[in-house]
Amino acid sequence: MDLDLALPPLVDQHCHGVLRHDPDADEFASYLTESDAPAAPGTSFFDTQLGFAVRRWCPPLLGLEAHCPAERYLERRRELGAEEATRRLLRASGTGTYLVDTGLPGDLTGPAELAGLAGLDDGRGHVVVRLEALAERSADASHGPGAFVEVLGHAVVASSRTAAGFKSVAAYRHGLGLDPEPPAPAEVHAAAARWMDSRPRGGRLRDPVLLRHLLWSAVRTGLPLQLHTGFGDPDLRLDHADPLLLTDFIRAVGTYGSPLVLLHGYPYHRHAAYLANVFTHVYADVGLALCHTGARADAVLAEALELTPFGKLLYSSDAFGLPELYVVGARVFEEALGGVLGAWTESGAWSEPDARRVAHLLAAGNARRLYGLGPETD
Amino acid sequence: MDLDLALPPLVDQHCHGVLRHDPDADEFASYLTESDAPAAPGTSFFDTQLGFAVRRWCPPLLGLEAHCPAERYLERRRELGAEEATRRLLRASGTGTYLVDTGLPGDLTGPAELAGLAGLDDGRGHVVVRLEALAERSADASHGPGAFVEVLGHAVVASSRTAAGFKSVAAYRHGLGLDPEPPAPAEVHAAAARWMDSRPRGGRLRDPVLLRHLLWSAVRTGLPLQLHTGFGDPDLRLDHADPLLLTDFIRAVGTYGSPLVLLHGYPYHRHAAYLANVFTHVYADVGLALCHTGARADAVLAEALELTPFGKLLYSSDAFGLPELYVVGARVFEEALGGVLGAWTESGAWSEPDARRVAHLLAAGNARRLYGLGPETD
Amino acid sequence: MDLDLALPPLVDQHCHGVLRHDPDADEFASYLTESDAPAAPGTSFFDTQLGFAVRRWCPPLLGLEAHCPAERYLERRRELGAEEATRRLLRASGTGTYLVDTGLPGDLTGPAELAGLAGLDDGRGHVVVRLEALAERSADASHGPGAFVEVLGHAVVASSRTAAGFKSVAAYRHGLGLDPEPPAPAEVHAAAARWMDSRPRGGRLRDPVLLRHLLWSAVRTGLPLQLHTGFGDPDLRLDHADPLLLTDFIRAVGTYGSPLVLLHGYPYHRHAAYLANVFTHVYADVGLALCHTGARADAVLAEALELTPFGKLLYSSDAFGLPELYVVGARVFEEALGGVLGAWTESGAWSEPDARRVAHLLAAGNARRLYGLGPETD
Repeated sequence: MDLDLALPPLVDQHCHGVLRHDPDADEFASYLTESDAPAAPGTSFFDTQLGFAVRRWCPPLLGLEAHCPAERYLERRRELGAEEATRRLLRASGTGTYLVDTGLPGDLTGPAELAGLAGLDDGRGHVVVRLEALAERSADASHGPGAFVEVLGHAVVASSRTAAGFKSVAAYRHGLGLDPEPPAPAEVHAAAARWMDSRPRGGRLRDPVLLRHLLWSAVRTGLPLQLHTGFGDPDLRLDHADPLLLTDFIRAVGTYGSPLVLLHGYPYHRHAAYLANVFTHVYADVGLALCHTGARADAVLAEALELTPFGKLLYSSDAFGLPELYVVGARVFEEALGGVLGAWTESGAWSEPDARRVAHLLAAGNARRLYGLGPETD
Repeated sequence: MDLDLALPPLVDQHCHGVLRHDPDADEFASYLTESDAPAAPGTSFFDTQLGFAVRRWCPPLLGLEAHCPAERYLERRRELGAEEATRRLLRASGTGTYLVDTGLPGDLTGPAELAGLAGLDDGRGHVVVRLEALAERSADASHGPGAFVEVLGHAVVASSRTAAGFKSVAAYRHGLGLDPEPPAPAEVHAAAARWMDSRPRGGRLRDPVLLRHLLWSAVRTGLPLQLHTGFGDPDLRLDHADPLLLTDFIRAVGTYGSPLVLLHGYPYHRHAAYLANVFTHVYADVGLALCHTGARADAVLAEALELTPFGKLLYSSDAFGLPELYVVGARVFEEALGGVLGAWTESGAWSEPDARRVAHLLAAGNARRLYGLGPETD
Repeated sequence: MDLDLALPPLVDQHCHGVLRHDPDADEFASYLTESDAPAAPGTSFFDTQLGFAVRRWCPPLLGLEAHCPAERYLERRRELGAEEATRRLLRASGTGTYLVDTGLPGDLTGPAELAGLAGLDDGRGHVVVRLEALAERSADASHGPGAFVEVLGHAVVASSRTAAGFKSVAAYRHGLGLDPEPPAPAEVHAAAARWMDSRPRGGRLRDPVLLRHLLWSAVRTGLPLQLHTGFGDPDLRLDHADPLLLTDFIRAVGTYGSPLVLLHGYPYHRHAAYLANVFTHVYADVGLALCHTGARADAVLAEALELTPFGKLLYSSDAFGLPELYVVGARVFEEALGGVLGAWTESGAWSEPDARRVAHLLAAGNARRLYGLGPETD
């Protein structure tokens, strides 16, 4: 049984911008995978759960049949043009609020532009500041390590006045097995000197002392801090992105009052759920895990709902580049939620009023409370 | 299809005592989580799978509707009084034998008192001796390390004459990554000297040499040894409680004849199942995992049944404090078992006689054989 | 809904030979487990998912009822004789091509003999060369380390001319946490000298330098390299067989063009799926995981299909010794596939043509492409 959950407009608590240009077939396919290399000989990135989910949900929004061949879909998309396709897709996604990690490079829309394309007020697009990108921009703008540390400190504080939250990709840059304590100022300065000294312009931050300094700078603002954990592109060692590696950091942060949001987590989403269960200030998200597992999103969501308290699990699409991914994120989430809660109410394990209440929390309520977004107005 | 399994009275191979007093709403809620801190702002510990399971199974036993609001349930509980509520709940749980870890502090019933409240003969409550608590009591009663080691040695042997088994919480105190071999007597004495020297009265045992000495002291008695693995409270680093960390200890114990029972295991229950599959003297339990995952208990039980031989998986509630948790443990287990085995017989994967036979083993037969409890008499 | 997938004859990309003699009841049971020790007191290796799967699928092929008692089945098997039973079982398995790891000791059929017993042309049995066995044979045949290294080098190249692929059991011999880079020639010679010096005739290779040398020798031939990962017998530390430990080796191999096939993977099959998702030259297999989890094979297969691109998942039985295991491997795979894809088409997540196409890829197409087996001819 699929339960009618009568969901409110979704709050997408973690996504990126959409492409401003019309991608060709190869570029389109490259957004269906976390791989940064070509598909293996004789295979296609469309032959994945995400590829099948795109072919299920998107063609009908552009006037085609579900599951039509990828070529036919891409042809229709070109006929409409990127902007019109983007508009149609975003408006159909059922999302009412976007929290946008603005730290990725590329010709991508910002939060206000994204909201606008989706037919929403500009104010429905909020910024999530990617800490490592902020540090790299601060380094580009600074002469010498002392200036860098000062500029960065100001930038974090200034960001915290307007951003909805911070995000860290320390999982990619070093792995999550960082020393949990904040580095002393002298350590930070020494690390900044080493990094600034050897860094080419635009060079990525991978220094563990500076990564810890960034995390602690964000934590001190009290704003929610999103942390990438689990599945991601091949830059990352997946076993170094197990959220349990954050346990001692979570304990150390305890008294600072900054909520920590563990993004994605897959295939360690049960580990993230455990952390959300036993630590007051830890929240979990299953964004990326749901759209990439497509037909299996119900099982993955159900696993996340084993230990995550229902007031602490958040929806996100982690969509990036293609407007299709905002649609898939939303549809896959709603479909999975309806299936899972439908089965639990049918068996008598949950009551229907509880199921509807929890569905609203996951779709929007938890994010509204956590990010201080105010009550729903539509 | 749910199969009627006609289960015998359950043997709960791992539980704790119930509270002797009437908990207020906050204390009640604190037993629904492994967290030791308040719920996050705007959230409730009732909004968890365990909270929903309590609201499903317990209100009807006190004359209310399933899923009634928590406040209404707590009000009704107060009307009846703690003792009457405890009596009604325990008698409805369908449990015929309790193996009680008596090592937790607090105003809790012992095994005989628990059996009595449940309407059973006193003899249906058995003691499981928590090794670390035994060591701490031995230390409290000893002057100097030499006396401590001797007192402890006598206490282990004396316990083994009446206890059903031993239990270790080394996972909490140090993690399971202990040196697998028994420490030499000189090492034990040196560690005892260090510990006794620095220990405040009542201080917890965390010394890895003494923890290993405890494990090996228990193993030498030949009695079943229960080991906490996996999910537990935030004292523990979950990744240090992976049962696979016990592999070399399991190999070293091999020839001593003491069966090892891996408790809980979640989210590493497939790891525990593997160990039970390939090592003759290893058994697995899914107690805590089932009640905390509630509506998902069927999936978790099914995962445990992938590799655990059917003669080696044991039921327990891990109930503690609230009589509700004995009910939830039992109902969630039976419901999950009926659902899982029902699906497997319906598909033809299992025959119905096999399903009934295995269900009896899991509910009672395996524990009766392992702990030498004799045949069922009711 | 179970979808009729109209599967082609299966390509079993990883199996071993069958016994040439008639096993007695104890030997038969010993093939139902990865344990190398007796079953625990009061338990039986037939009381496992694999035991139940054998009792489900095999009795009807010998004229008995499904799920008949194990004793009755073994009696019937003896009446028919090992060769006739083997013939009937293999012919019913629906397998059209066998890739046989010939590196196990014992009185086992080779690839051509296996194909013949199954009623196929000899050419339907292909050799997969187990690297460690090749090294041990090379050592037995060589005087001194210099000769060993040379003989081994020739043996790898010679094997690559006729074998379908190579296989490594480094997971058993050392664990997968090997230095990812190829060892320098001087290191190889020093390791060979140490090993040849201390090795009794027939002694197993466990030296990490020589294991790496074997992996890199195989990789340089460009032939597919199968790597044991995950679940196996108690020789192995399961946590040292997590396929993620291969991440840096996978990166290092990247440019050499040798596809890597991660065998089994369970319970880390989601980790293997991730690697197949993000690295072009990585493939995954769920052989051993499916037959040992029996009634749960659908869930395990579904987990593997979360992230593994559909062009990169391969069927195998990992059958060894008993012809029953070839039947169980095939039936459990087909049943799981029908159930999983049936549910996904019924819900609308997948289209039926896509489901049939993907089923063909998994059953045979992916293996045909990867091992260059040419198009199906039956």
